[in-house]
Amino acid sequence: MSEVCKLSHGELIRHREPGHGMSGALFGRQDVFETDVDVFFARHWILVGVTADVPESGDVSTVEIGRASILIVRDDDNMIRTWRNVCRHRGARLKEAGKSTVGMLVCPYHQWTYDLDGGLRHAAHMGKDFDPKCRSLIPVHTKIVGTQIFVCLADEAPVDIARLDATMTPRFAPYDLTNTKIAFEQEIVEEGNWKLVMENNRECYHCQGTHPELTASFLPEDFGFCPENLDEVSLAALDDYRTRNAACQASWASDGLEGETVEWLGEDAVTQFRTQQLVIAGAGESQTLSTRVASTRLLGALTRRDLGDLHLWTHNSWTHVMSDHAVITYIIPLAPDRTLVRSKWLVHADAVEGVDYDLQALTEVWIATNMQDKHLVEITHEGTQDPAYRPGAFSPFTEVYVEQFSRWYAARLIAHGV
Amino acid sequence: MSEVCKLSHGELIRHREPGHGMSGALFGRQDVFETDVDVFFARHWILVGVTADVPESGDVSTVEIGRASILIVRDDDNMIRTWRNVCRHRGARLKEAGKSTVGMLVCPYHQWTYDLDGGLRHAAHMGKDFDPKCRSLIPVHTKIVGTQIFVCLADEAPVDIARLDATMTPRFAPYDLTNTKIAFEQEIVEEGNWKLVMENNRECYHCQGTHPELTASFLPEDFGFCPENLDEVSLAALDDYRTRNAACQASWASDGLEGETVEWLGEDAVTQFRTQQLVIAGAGESQTLSTRVASTRLLGALTRRDLGDLHLWTHNSWTHVMSDHAVITYIIPLAPDRTLVRSKWLVHADAVEGVDYDLQALTEVWIATNMQDKHLVEITHEGTQDPAYRPGAFSPFTEVYVEQFSRWYAARLIAHGV
Amino acid sequence: MSEVCKLSHGELIRHREPGHGMSGALFGRQDVFETDVDVFFARHWILVGVTADVPESGDVSTVEIGRASILIVRDDDNMIRTWRNVCRHRGARLKEAGKSTVGMLVCPYHQWTYDLDGGLRHAAHMGKDFDPKCRSLIPVHTKIVGTQIFVCLADEAPVDIARLDATMTPRFAPYDLTNTKIAFEQEIVEEGNWKLVMENNRECYHCQGTHPELTASFLPEDFGFCPENLDEVSLAALDDYRTRNAACQASWASDGLEGETVEWLGEDAVTQFRTQQLVIAGAGESQTLSTRVASTRLLGALTRRDLGDLHLWTHNSWTHVMSDHAVITYIIPLAPDRTLVRSKWLVHADAVEGVDYDLQALTEVWIATNMQDKHLVEITHEGTQDPAYRPGAFSPFTEVYVEQFSRWYAARLIAHGV
Repeated sequence: MSEVCKLSHGELIRHREPGHGMSGALFGRQDVFETDVDVFFARHWILVGVTADVPESGDVSTVEIGRASILIVRDDDNMIRTWRNVCRHRGARLKEAGKSTVGMLVCPYHQWTYDLDGGLRHAAHMGKDFDPKCRSLIPVHTKIVGTQIFVCLADEAPVDIARLDATMTPRFAPYDLTNTKIAFEQEIVEEGNWKLVMENNRECYHCQGTHPELTASFLPEDFGFCPENLDEVSLAALDDYRTRNAACQASWASDGLEGETVEWLGEDAVTQFRTQQLVIAGAGESQTLSTRVASTRLLGALTRRDLGDLHLWTHNSWTHVMSDHAVITYIIPLAPDRTLVRSKWLVHADAVEGVDYDLQALTEVWIATNMQDKHLVEITHEGTQDPAYRPGAFSPFTEVYVEQFSRWYAARLIAHGV
Repeated sequence: MSEVCKLSHGELIRHREPGHGMSGALFGRQDVFETDVDVFFARHWILVGVTADVPESGDVSTVEIGRASILIVRDDDNMIRTWRNVCRHRGARLKEAGKSTVGMLVCPYHQWTYDLDGGLRHAAHMGKDFDPKCRSLIPVHTKIVGTQIFVCLADEAPVDIARLDATMTPRFAPYDLTNTKIAFEQEIVEEGNWKLVMENNRECYHCQGTHPELTASFLPEDFGFCPENLDEVSLAALDDYRTRNAACQASWASDGLEGETVEWLGEDAVTQFRTQQLVIAGAGESQTLSTRVASTRLLGALTRRDLGDLHLWTHNSWTHVMSDHAVITYIIPLAPDRTLVRSKWLVHADAVEGVDYDLQALTEVWIATNMQDKHLVEITHEGTQDPAYRPGAFSPFTEVYVEQFSRWYAARLIAHGV
Repeated sequence: MSEVCKLSHGELIRHREPGHGMSGALFGRQDVFETDVDVFFARHWILVGVTADVPESGDVSTVEIGRASILIVRDDDNMIRTWRNVCRHRGARLKEAGKSTVGMLVCPYHQWTYDLDGGLRHAAHMGKDFDPKCRSLIPVHTKIVGTQIFVCLADEAPVDIARLDATMTPRFAPYDLTNTKIAFEQEIVEEGNWKLVMENNRECYHCQGTHPELTASFLPEDFGFCPENLDEVSLAALDDYRTRNAACQASWASDGLEGETVEWLGEDAVTQFRTQQLVIAGAGESQTLSTRVASTRLLGALTRRDLGDLHLWTHNSWTHVMSDHAVITYIIPLAPDRTLVRSKWLVHADAVEGVDYDLQALTEVWIATNMQDKHLVEITHEGTQDPAYRPGAFSPFTEVYVEQFSRWYAARLIAHGV
């Protein structure tokens, strides 16, 4: 272990054997964590919320990203703006964690007062040499795609967010995601490194044995399998899967939906993402235990229920959009061994709980799945910190995207001089 | 932030822009904290208690200062002595935190027994070659001014404690502060750096907006204001303030009280302090909600109630002495982001609760003020640790003493070779 | 303190004054702790359990040693085997802390399945190029002496465990310790360095003043005393002690028991230990408050109750075996200032609680003693971290084995290149 301790972050990523897991030091070391937060959460676009977090003018939602805190504000012109949550005077937080509604942003310390557009309107006792124009709140790069709020804390934001935007905006359009409300929010802390949370999300090899609720609506073949020595039963099932999948894709295309899989995950990708229109098992409608819609008030102006699962990954989020609801989950690293996981369940803005949708049916699949994943991440984090841990081989059939995430992680660090 | 992380403690203080706050690294870094504790809490005089902590012979009060612990002991000759709380054998603590009364100091481990004067009286099984005279408890430099116990943990203590003593002893004399008792004690932990606690104490710019209880008895003009563009109402109020202040000072002088402001805060000052006789608003008697005395049994042999507020700052304490009671607060740093704040409310030793004074009236102003300050310190500490924090400009009118504290902090570190 | 902070681990041990305590940095520093765990808990044999932890085939007991975790498994052939608790795939823990019973070891993540003999029996989706034979669980060196399970996590285990085995196996034989059950287990965390826990265990200088329950059955002369200037009463007591001790030893020898004291503690010892057959005070039977047996069902096929206390030390454990029960305690360091202490009380496998033994009488002496020792370790740890701490002189009569432990500690570190 002492040898590994002496390796630099760059050496650790370069020493990974292709097709194998990362070194335990990459999950556990404090210096690695700090660089990770800086590179992947300050210098890349990250998902940090949805437009329904601030539904009305004057609404403010505070999001903490490591030691940084930002204010997501809906201004009087109905635009969403984001500011660093730091007073320009002595640095006090303007707002604590959570949501509130304000007319102006008033610092609790010395009452320096900012307009929602970030301008410093009032600061007492500063004298005539003080220029409030130089003391506006510091803005944050912001891009809304669908309903998802992406921000970048760096001075220069990666330009390939345009590719995510161009790909996803037409796909999200039929669902009219800005016309939604948050039916439920869940926040959990997983005692494991953020990369283990993402690796866990990048494969469904573990699903069959651990996620009974989720697999009700998943087609296992979607997530890879070993094609060797399949028996007749398996071959027949595979045939059924392919037939069903082709039929659904053709049907969606005939309704004008863009469902083609798009990947921007390679080593050239800065703002990596992957989207796919997944077929839902059983009744084919939604990620529920019954595989039927949980909300009879469909999203947007949709009338068709069996649209499958419009799935989107980024490096800190996963989104599932069905005809009746969406589940959007994003992560924020808290420590080498602690990761915040926030999930939001969205339904049509006019849907009424108990009338149009049942909250338990809406949420039970992903609440259970999140808790199961939390446990898996935690026992894996612990194991990778054991001196006896040696990175094992990935399955070449079911862990392809874990391997890809590992390669992208290394490429992005190298691009940032690590 | 990474650039700031690489700067040394000395570079961080030298890079401060005059008139602006300190770098966030000075509040957050562990190495800075350790040097701070060593320089400002081990090598300077610090306030750590009052004589009423150990009212009788054999009374012991334990105070922890970082990893150090000291025993404040009242010996049989009624003298207060202080010892390092470390057995000379295996190092065990002789006393745990808190107060007790003893005949001798007996180590709980192997019963090595010390007299209250520090001498090792008994140690079993050590044999004839063992010389107990070399194993006395280690003494601590101690100076009592008024009732306040100042100690210095260094081998050589700064000599300019004499200036504090010479200034304050005559000022405290009429209040006979050793003839007091502790009516109430409060101990809170503020989740912020000790320097933010002191900076908050060095200005009242924040008072108007955050301390409704305290400002009942404060005259806001005492703490600075911007004289530009005052309207007629403000100019009239200022005139009233000046008239009232001059009248009070003249009246106190005619009664023989020394009320002149004395500052020893500059860069030559080692044991920095500032004292001022502040006028109290309203009825003019005491820092209470009613501005009247909370204890009808005045301190010492006083008969006059309207003596204002004899105020004293040191770099780890603030004291307010009124005709009827005193409030003495001191701080001990616990971690870069944690500071212990202890307050003691003193009344005449013979004052009886419920008869001479009402405990709520006595304590409610500073209990509320301390909790408000705790919140302000905490949101400021958090904000200064944000990568977006840039030190802002101080008000040249209301934050003069914050600037002065920043300069003194730098000067003292430089004097210690940082 | 800053000087001490700059010294290397090696310098700190070399600078110790003979006959005096260790430097505070050796108890408090994180880097010292990590080397200690590596050298003394990964590269030496350590006691981590008893055979009664896994009484039946398929029983698994998980033990955590720093960041390492091991599985103690009783295989179908009734042999005890130990494995690193890390899946060979993504590293997940196979078992969480505690005890369970299994048919096979199934990883909770992707259901990789291992036989109890460590072989990988099943891993889905890995393809034909994957060789499960290279993915067996990693074994741990294991040696059972009496009932005590010793393991060594290093690739090469020290060979002198044979000396411990040769010495103790005949001594333990009459007690038939594998035919026992755990009547009670206690797990406490002492807020002190592991070496302070061991130093405390290596002397009974503190017993007279702190362990009223334990000293009921101890003869104080067994643990050293200063022979100078003894008065007539003490000389007579010493004479009694010597007479009694000689009589007991002769009586045990005539019954064929090996009771001779054996020490393997010096600087050549890797797997250090010491064993002694101690006489029990009072009724002479057992370490209970009454000094009589707590279990009338004696161990093995014993019929004689007054066999004294067969005592064994290793560098992470202490064992007391009496005619009716055994108490086995071992420690695992958790942090520089935290040590796990686990005690197990063993009685004959067929002994029935409430019939053959009373649980309170069986356990009350060492439960009380452990809590007292925890307190002593904690106040000593705190004191040694005080800047005023200077290592004091050991008693040349009662702290001989503390000095020896300090020497062995240094010698072992030097042997490992520190």
